[in-house]
Amino acid sequence: MHLEHDLKILRHSAAHLLAHAVTELFPETLLTIGPATEEGFFYDFLPTTNFKEEDLARIDKRMQELAAKNLPLTHQEISKEEARLLYHNNPFKLELIDGIPGDTVGLSVQGDFKDLCRGGHVASTGELKHVKLLSLAGSYWRANKDGQVLQRIYGTAFFTADGLKAYEQYKQDILEFDHRRLGKAMDLFSFHEEGVGFPFFHPKGQRVINALTKYMRDLHREFDYEEIATPTLLSDELWRQSGHYAHYKDKMYFCAIDEKNYAVKPMNCPGSILIYKTRPRSYRELPLKLAEFGHVHRHELSGVLHGLLRVRAFTQDDAHIYCMPSQLKSELTKLIHIVYTMLAKCGFSEVLVAVSTKPLTDAFSNDALWDQATNALIDALKENNKEFSIKEGEGAFYGPKIEIVIKDSMGRSWQCGTIQVDFFQSENFDLSYIASSGAKERPVIIHQAIFGSLERFFAILLEHYKGNLPFWLAPTQVRILTITDAQREYAYGLYQTIKSFGIRVEFDETSDPLSGKIKSAQQDKIPWMLVIGQKEVDNKTITLRYNTGKQEFGLSLEVLLEKIKLLA
Amino acid sequence: MHLEHDLKILRHSAAHLLAHAVTELFPETLLTIGPATEEGFFYDFLPTTNFKEEDLARIDKRMQELAAKNLPLTHQEISKEEARLLYHNNPFKLELIDGIPGDTVGLSVQGDFKDLCRGGHVASTGELKHVKLLSLAGSYWRANKDGQVLQRIYGTAFFTADGLKAYEQYKQDILEFDHRRLGKAMDLFSFHEEGVGFPFFHPKGQRVINALTKYMRDLHREFDYEEIATPTLLSDELWRQSGHYAHYKDKMYFCAIDEKNYAVKPMNCPGSILIYKTRPRSYRELPLKLAEFGHVHRHELSGVLHGLLRVRAFTQDDAHIYCMPSQLKSELTKLIHIVYTMLAKCGFSEVLVAVSTKPLTDAFSNDALWDQATNALIDALKENNKEFSIKEGEGAFYGPKIEIVIKDSMGRSWQCGTIQVDFFQSENFDLSYIASSGAKERPVIIHQAIFGSLERFFAILLEHYKGNLPFWLAPTQVRILTITDAQREYAYGLYQTIKSFGIRVEFDETSDPLSGKIKSAQQDKIPWMLVIGQKEVDNKTITLRYNTGKQEFGLSLEVLLEKIKLLA
Repeated sequence: MHLEHDLKILRHSAAHLLAHAVTELFPETLLTIGPATEEGFFYDFLPTTNFKEEDLARIDKRMQELAAKNLPLTHQEISKEEARLLYHNNPFKLELIDGIPGDTVGLSVQGDFKDLCRGGHVASTGELKHVKLLSLAGSYWRANKDGQVLQRIYGTAFFTADGLKAYEQYKQDILEFDHRRLGKAMDLFSFHEEGVGFPFFHPKGQRVINALTKYMRDLHREFDYEEIATPTLLSDELWRQSGHYAHYKDKMYFCAIDEKNYAVKPMNCPGSILIYKTRPRSYRELPLKLAEFGHVHRHELSGVLHGLLRVRAFTQDDAHIYCMPSQLKSELTKLIHIVYTMLAKCGFSEVLVAVSTKPLTDAFSNDALWDQATNALIDALKENNKEFSIKEGEGAFYGPKIEIVIKDSMGRSWQCGTIQVDFFQSENFDLSYIASSGAKERPVIIHQAIFGSLERFFAILLEHYKGNLPFWLAPTQVRILTITDAQREYAYGLYQTIKSFGIRVEFDETSDPLSGKIKSAQQDKIPWMLVIGQKEVDNKTITLRYNTGKQEFGLSLEVLLEKIKLLA
Repeated sequence: MHLEHDLKILRHSAAHLLAHAVTELFPETLLTIGPATEEGFFYDFLPTTNFKEEDLARIDKRMQELAAKNLPLTHQEISKEEARLLYHNNPFKLELIDGIPGDTVGLSVQGDFKDLCRGGHVASTGELKHVKLLSLAGSYWRANKDGQVLQRIYGTAFFTADGLKAYEQYKQDILEFDHRRLGKAMDLFSFHEEGVGFPFFHPKGQRVINALTKYMRDLHREFDYEEIATPTLLSDELWRQSGHYAHYKDKMYFCAIDEKNYAVKPMNCPGSILIYKTRPRSYRELPLKLAEFGHVHRHELSGVLHGLLRVRAFTQDDAHIYCMPSQLKSELTKLIHIVYTMLAKCGFSEVLVAVSTKPLTDAFSNDALWDQATNALIDALKENNKEFSIKEGEGAFYGPKIEIVIKDSMGRSWQCGTIQVDFFQSENFDLSYIASSGAKERPVIIHQAIFGSLERFFAILLEHYKGNLPFWLAPTQVRILTITDAQREYAYGLYQTIKSFGIRVEFDETSDPLSGKIKSAQQDKIPWMLVIGQKEVDNKTITLRYNTGKQEFGLSLEVLLEKIKLLA
């Protein structure tokens, strides 16, 4: 394993190599900057005529030749005067020189190529063998939209051929298993200009959404949440009282009813709070856990919309726990348990959790409550034996929170659920409960969303599993394939029985040969095929073929249904 | 049994009796008209000073006295001239006289009281013994809002004391079992000024909505419907294309996104159609049945909002069947079966069905299609052995339909589901499928909504069952009651097990005596109580007490769960 720092140096050196090659091939090109990035490096140029995609191969080849020369890299410190002379015809480098403190600037030298540089390089270009140029893009000098337009060349570099190969595979996977591509190929959902940013779920996509909803509903029931439903449109005054209007109105949609202004709800909290307030509450009712599969609308600029990952309308698996401060720890402990139960069920084993604590300024002013809630969050994580980091001062003004980040099968991180303690809305809406003493007390609210957005979580699952959703989530769980039409009656009987158990089963009625039926089921990413030949009919059995190709023979229907029960 | 016609005569005669009593008690009062109605009769008066509620008792008493006198009623025909003389100081009667064709008008005479009248009376006031005044209201002369303000007295009359008593009970039931009252008493839902006309479902109400939804989803699965979900907001252009904008825009809400006008969907059809159009469809896919639990918004004037029966937002159990014309009959036959299956499950045995046929003018111009679809509707009803009426010419311009009206336990009629054949939208949106011949053909659409609106159907169910929802719908299905705290552990174990089966069960943790616990479960309209005493603990059994008071002793948990399975 190479340290992240070393990889940065490698990539920054590769940027110099790129600039070196460009200078040799296009000598009039002005160089600007070339930093390392998360995934590689780039260099911004001002060429005399724009680079074309075809140029990248030529530049790449020249870089390889320069690497093969194994030119040593040296670092020089020169006076600013000398540097200005060197770059007298390059206004970008001159501007950079002016911005560097002190009297000298660094120079990186390899062969007859020099570049302005703070330092930190590989020893020679021979170390830059596993480098690849990726793409060409437009950019602006200093990222200023009114500044000089430049051309950026992206590339990446690794220490080993395997490293580069894995990266190339990763990039290919990202394209191949982009949920938008899978969504179309698997007929799961679509987007239309008649509703920009609003997903349309097709039958197979809705089956997945319903499976996720049912799973969360079952978890809710197990942990004594109660479901509610609140309106999509609520009056302006309510959103002003909740503070959403002041802080969030640019993301909200509005419409007028009877000369009153209504907002399409961007959040479910105010509706939940109105239900809490419909009657006096006793401490005996607490914790009161009100869940809502709330369909919310939030405006996003059309440029940032991205399939199901970034939409303008989505369904939250929202819940609000109204509790006494003394119940925070036990409620949060259960909640952390629910989060990890769901993530394990969905195949996410790498989870990063951070506790965000009281901001230094403008925080809700009840230190005892902050301490109690923050400790409750930390204790809840400890009770569940979970590691976590602390983000000091990064809580919201109204309470501390936990953010949950998951890593998918391609190593990417996704922020999903949040658990947010809220002292403010309870006071803002004057919520109360009658304590055992008879006194009127103020509850604390915990906001939770575990999937977060069902749409977004669906997209993450699709990419994580590369479309091969596990049995309990697969749009079609089982497909029945007969070898010839002679098995049709038996197979159709099986289909009817399996369907009656609520299993998402299909019956392949085509006259394709078995190999074709298997191929089509694999393409459709169906986890189980039930292959029915004459032997199966005669023995009243089933051959189960997994989409991995593995087979189990001679299963009875009862055994099959038992196996399904374990997976559902 | 008395004929409806006779009851009308009785009630119209009662209106004369009312006018007679008023004339005696308030001689300066001007009489106008007094017709029989569905539930009784009314008379509109112009008194010199307004009647008060207290006056009704006095008038009622005078009517009884006049009835006891057994005055014969006779009918006279007099000349208009004579009549105008009689009513020279009553501009209303004068206007009525002017409106009657011919030279004479009828006069009804009882004792020294006369009233203008077409005829049709009981023989004497002695027949008017079971009469009751009901209420006082404002009205306008000839129902014209700019006309003279009058005072209306409502009453009713029956042939027998039992008839009147049953009516009074009915009126009392309507008040007592008004779903708004039950909704509050049972903590099912609420309305708030922050969202006028938009219901908020509380936990217990949402349980019922979820039970209804699950039931319909299961029916959908059984009959091969597929669920989809389409956006709440869709662009103006789409609603213009669908025709909703032109015909329905006063009932729609709009909001602006990115300088474009969007409507909050009042119907789900256009969204469903966009999904149909996402790819070419083959005849092999037909019938394609796309269902959606679509949350729609439709503006209603605030004055007509009425609990869940009339709201501004509701969820339809909507579905669109895209099929070939040749499939209409078999699809409609299945659909009628689904309708009656659902209605029987929900306890509605009296169902009135009408087929509305092609309008005389402006109908979609394909007579062969009209004939095929209308016959398919009629045949589908016949196949299901259902009686129906024909509403000639009352279909929509785009196709024939079936309207389903149910009668509830109080004898009231409710229009619920509709089945609508639609030739127009398929052509309007240029829908097609590839027929087995390879030719491009146009599908027909069947719009169906069986509950209609889940919210409205919930209200009807609540009133129909007077709050005592059947086991499968009850917000809480089972409550466990212990005789003393000594049975707590056993009872709590039962509670956990029963809950794990997804049954809506509660555990009464109060320290009330058993009688108190039973009373409270009855008040909460919980169908089953499980009563646990020491005997039950010792024998590991359960006593099941229905909310009717009937009990079953010594049940094992297994037997209990089996019983539940039959009801769920």
